[in-house]
Amino acid sequence: MAYELYYWPGIQGRGEFVRLAFEYSNTPYLDVARRAGGMKKMFSVMQRERVFAPPFLRSGKDVVFQTAAILHYLGPRLGLAPKSEARRRRLHQLQLTITDWLVEVHDCHHPVGVMLYYEDQKPESKRRAVSFRRERLPKFLRYFEGILGKEKQFSYVNLSLFQMMEGLDYAFPRTMERIRAPALRANQLRVRQRVADYLASPRRIPFNTQGIFRHYPELDR
Amino acid sequence: MAYELYYWPGIQGRGEFVRLAFEYSNTPYLDVARRAGGMKKMFSVMQRERVFAPPFLRSGKDVVFQTAAILHYLGPRLGLAPKSEARRRRLHQLQLTITDWLVEVHDCHHPVGVMLYYEDQKPESKRRAVSFRRERLPKFLRYFEGILGKEKQFSYVNLSLFQMMEGLDYAFPRTMERIRAPALRANQLRVRQRVADYLASPRRIPFNTQGIFRHYPELDR
Repeated sequence: MAYELYYWPGIQGRGEFVRLAFEYSNTPYLDVARRAGGMKKMFSVMQRERVFAPPFLRSGKDVVFQTAAILHYLGPRLGLAPKSEARRRRLHQLQLTITDWLVEVHDCHHPVGVMLYYEDQKPESKRRAVSFRRERLPKFLRYFEGILGKEKQFSYVNLSLFQMMEGLDYAFPRTMERIRAPALRANQLRVRQRVADYLASPRRIPFNTQGIFRHYPELDR
Repeated sequence: MAYELYYWPGIQGRGEFVRLAFEYSNTPYLDVARRAGGMKKMFSVMQRERVFAPPFLRSGKDVVFQTAAILHYLGPRLGLAPKSEARRRRLHQLQLTITDWLVEVHDCHHPVGVMLYYEDQKPESKRRAVSFRRERLPKFLRYFEGILGKEKQFSYVNLSLFQMMEGLDYAFPRTMERIRAPALRANQLRVRQRVADYLASPRRIPFNTQGIFRHYPELDR
């Protein structure tokens, strides 16, 4: 039975970190909510299995939610993590740190409320984006630049770092142009080549201003 | 060798979720950064082991950071999680959801920037707190109220839910008074009795307006 991924259709969002693991490893999967009747099915499984929020994965009897937990589960199964418990644990901690980073990206355009529109929190977003660009973004980039210099074995963390760089390039092109991160850039290029077919396919949803990475020029000075 | 916990002295913060696991299970541990020379040691281990941020745990050769990952590691070792992989995975997903909830608590008083003072983001905090109190807080409470009705085996998630309720009672007393959550309240009382000695000891740092849970009356209407 194929893996079933459940995530909002229409945005890359957190689901994309899981899609990349499937696509990179040529693993068949169903992107359930993007199929006919899929949204209804998603809500029904969520309620029955007490899933707090998408994305979640279904594989036989196993249901896993929380992006980092899904990747922790899939890693060894897809050949994207070593089998050693200590090494897997280390990767998971890195992925959880990427999760934190992603929240901060999201909050640049939603500092006041998840349920409000960006247009209703523009001045607050501008202030938040300044502190993100000046302090937080460099801190995360510096950290993962150091990590990539150390971690030699390719894993799902490399795929997630590719996605972070692609998203940041889309959302903050001016800021990212000023940044030097050779190891992250090399990883980004390498992954981009390896998943080129996927990126050119309709399965890759384009970045847009509904997702987590959003391009608003006023937030990118 | 005793477990070593590393976390900022002076606040409960994320470290408290780990402290509670040790205290509840009567497990000896060193709260390293609260001892003489401890901060220096913390920074030195962080740098050498490439830890992104406290809290982190050291146990022999193992170094684990990210609160939820620390509890996932400690759970079966302290008798606070079943040994079955599927059940452990489920608890971990719940803990990660508590992590998300805690970020939203923190962002009530820091919507604009982690590096700024609360006093520099008061109007933004007021707006953020409204959406937290009206939409997000009830959503998380409802979710975990349902979970507690289902999960019969006591685990570190019960301890974390205790800590969430204690923190919310401190930070948002007016709001919490209006909330009905019988399963969460019963769990809170039960844990409070079991760790009464710890709560009365100097090892329990009092809540204060430096931590994640902060009481600012203007945010609690």
